[in-house]
Amino acid sequence: MTDTPRGRAVAILGSTGSVGVSTLALLERFPDRFRAVALAAGRNMERLAAQVRRHGPALVSVADEVAAREFRERVPDYAGRLVVGVDGPLAVATHPEATVVISALVGALGLMPTLAAARAGKDVALANKEVLVVAGELVTQAAREQGVALLPVDSEHNAIFQALQGHNRSEVRRIVLTASGGPFLHHTVAQLASVTVADALKHPTWKMGSKITVDCSTLMNKGLEVIEAHWLFGMPADQIDIVVHPQSIVHSMVEYIDGSVISQMAVPDMTIPIAYALTYPDRLPLSYLPSLDLPAAGTLTFLPPDRERFPCLALAYQALRAGGTMPAVLNAANEVAVERFLAEDVAYRDVPEIVRSVMALHPRGPATDLETLMAADRWAREAASAWSVASGGGRQAATAT
Amino acid sequence: MTDTPRGRAVAILGSTGSVGVSTLALLERFPDRFRAVALAAGRNMERLAAQVRRHGPALVSVADEVAAREFRERVPDYAGRLVVGVDGPLAVATHPEATVVISALVGALGLMPTLAAARAGKDVALANKEVLVVAGELVTQAAREQGVALLPVDSEHNAIFQALQGHNRSEVRRIVLTASGGPFLHHTVAQLASVTVADALKHPTWKMGSKITVDCSTLMNKGLEVIEAHWLFGMPADQIDIVVHPQSIVHSMVEYIDGSVISQMAVPDMTIPIAYALTYPDRLPLSYLPSLDLPAAGTLTFLPPDRERFPCLALAYQALRAGGTMPAVLNAANEVAVERFLAEDVAYRDVPEIVRSVMALHPRGPATDLETLMAADRWAREAASAWSVASGGGRQAATAT
Repeated sequence: MTDTPRGRAVAILGSTGSVGVSTLALLERFPDRFRAVALAAGRNMERLAAQVRRHGPALVSVADEVAAREFRERVPDYAGRLVVGVDGPLAVATHPEATVVISALVGALGLMPTLAAARAGKDVALANKEVLVVAGELVTQAAREQGVALLPVDSEHNAIFQALQGHNRSEVRRIVLTASGGPFLHHTVAQLASVTVADALKHPTWKMGSKITVDCSTLMNKGLEVIEAHWLFGMPADQIDIVVHPQSIVHSMVEYIDGSVISQMAVPDMTIPIAYALTYPDRLPLSYLPSLDLPAAGTLTFLPPDRERFPCLALAYQALRAGGTMPAVLNAANEVAVERFLAEDVAYRDVPEIVRSVMALHPRGPATDLETLMAADRWAREAASAWSVASGGGRQAATAT
Repeated sequence: MTDTPRGRAVAILGSTGSVGVSTLALLERFPDRFRAVALAAGRNMERLAAQVRRHGPALVSVADEVAAREFRERVPDYAGRLVVGVDGPLAVATHPEATVVISALVGALGLMPTLAAARAGKDVALANKEVLVVAGELVTQAAREQGVALLPVDSEHNAIFQALQGHNRSEVRRIVLTASGGPFLHHTVAQLASVTVADALKHPTWKMGSKITVDCSTLMNKGLEVIEAHWLFGMPADQIDIVVHPQSIVHSMVEYIDGSVISQMAVPDMTIPIAYALTYPDRLPLSYLPSLDLPAAGTLTFLPPDRERFPCLALAYQALRAGGTMPAVLNAANEVAVERFLAEDVAYRDVPEIVRSVMALHPRGPATDLETLMAADRWAREAASAWSVASGGGRQAATAT
């Protein structure tokens, strides 16, 4: 399993999502450095077809038979292998030629294939934060055992990863994740109560999928990143801080014991962390991207996060401190709550209420194996689906304050 | 020449200046890590006497016999060696026990002892930027030949040094020095014309000596730092940029070819770069310093430098590009011009005029040896001393615009 003269062999879990699209665009810019050998997509067959025609991967996976039919219609002469359903991402993640797997599926769906990739000895470029939130211990253990790298693609964790290079881990005082603060940074509690789906899908700086965009607005995304940072960098909860930085230029920071703060800044373009994850410890000349022009950017501001208006943050720290299956429960309950909000089945402010209620009902337990975690995940999904304003009681409480 | 169990043996050129005082305060905090073996001071005998009583260096040097008499009166029982005059700093810089020399004399005075330190195989922690401005080629060559480290103490260069750790030098796109902009950042040309000595000595963030404070206000300090950065980091002039950052929190930055900008931030306290230079690649736990609190700091702003209102910047780039003896001439002319301004002998706006006039008269030549550089330095000092409004003609021209 080596990279051929034709460049590094890349498998992508989530090729039609925003990270997948950015990754393929990067691969296209550097055809001598990379080639895409396997792509896992869901149901966006128009995009997948275009990707397959351009990159000619040996393996493709799609969500179901409906998608598979559409794919065959769009690319009738596809000569590679097509895998349908849940086995697809597993096949892509363990494709024999691939030496690095971009893990960019949305939500807990990415967990099993990412774990499989690490266990198969592939380096993992991790864009799916739920993987570490749910199964941080298992995934980091698999990476250690196989001697593979877990390379963060999230802009914040990639920034921390860059800011740790060349300095002693034992001399880190804390890591500081920056948060854009989302579209509701200055909303009052009353305004937060009337947020619509359309409101929540407007993110000020990054263009991303709808689930993560809602998570950014509740700051649950940042909470999940705190848990992810814990696993990636081996830091306890009280050495991971958050600062709101609406301009999203300082992507995160590491503070050392001497008071030095090393940060990585860049224009908000996922190409940069994706490229660094793929070529670490080297960098690619991304001269076609706009440079960071600080005078043009003007002003950088920093605020403490408001843990009262954004209760998802405290819930995430609580789950990290509880450990075991609790982060998996936090994540599953949040996924369902966000789905229900996007379906206009619950209100915006119900999202943290659902997560809180489900966590409160969950008996803490160790995360010894994938089955236990998946059982906790399923249980939390059911509990979050069953939650109603009446049963949860959260709405009344929130309205009363 | 090894460090004993009593800690790293430090010699300080300029012990009673601000960097010297900060260094000794640091040494006092970490008595197991360091000891001061030799101190070079000038005429501040009250301070030197206190330092000697506290640190018991084996060697002390002072400016002249007057200072020496005062020193003997203040510390009658001093058992170490006292050297008087220009040989003093040389003796301190080459003290057999010292393994690192803090080069913090003001101006070109520090050049010979710093070069001597490098040639004697001492690591050099460099706070005196004029050393590299005048003799960058000779000093960096001596350091290379002896295999000693040149460690930057200036907060900007120390920040760049930190931001280069763990990344590939060949992948640097540019380095960006931050400048506070000085007290006259928003002055018009007319306002700059009426600046007094008292105005010029008020620096918004750092507390420093008067020569460097004036240099900060004219931005000549930043110009000298550009030349220093060229020698420290092997970067050509067009890969060294300046951005004005009035809050002095981002101490400088390195931009890489992928668009990532790595910066070091910290509270403005020289202890941090001094400590990093002394313990590199390790850090000291400086937990007694205030932490950088970005939300409390509030807003970070960045502006392009105004090269018209601050002509010293362009003069420094011009000197760097000309090379050879020209940076020495720039520096010497500036030292005299600032002295004359501080003595109220010339106006504030005459400072760049003097430098420009002297540079214009200087025939470019190579900087092959110290004698040539010293001759250029002497010539420039004489020319700058002789400059008058009438002969320079600068005042009229400036007034006309």
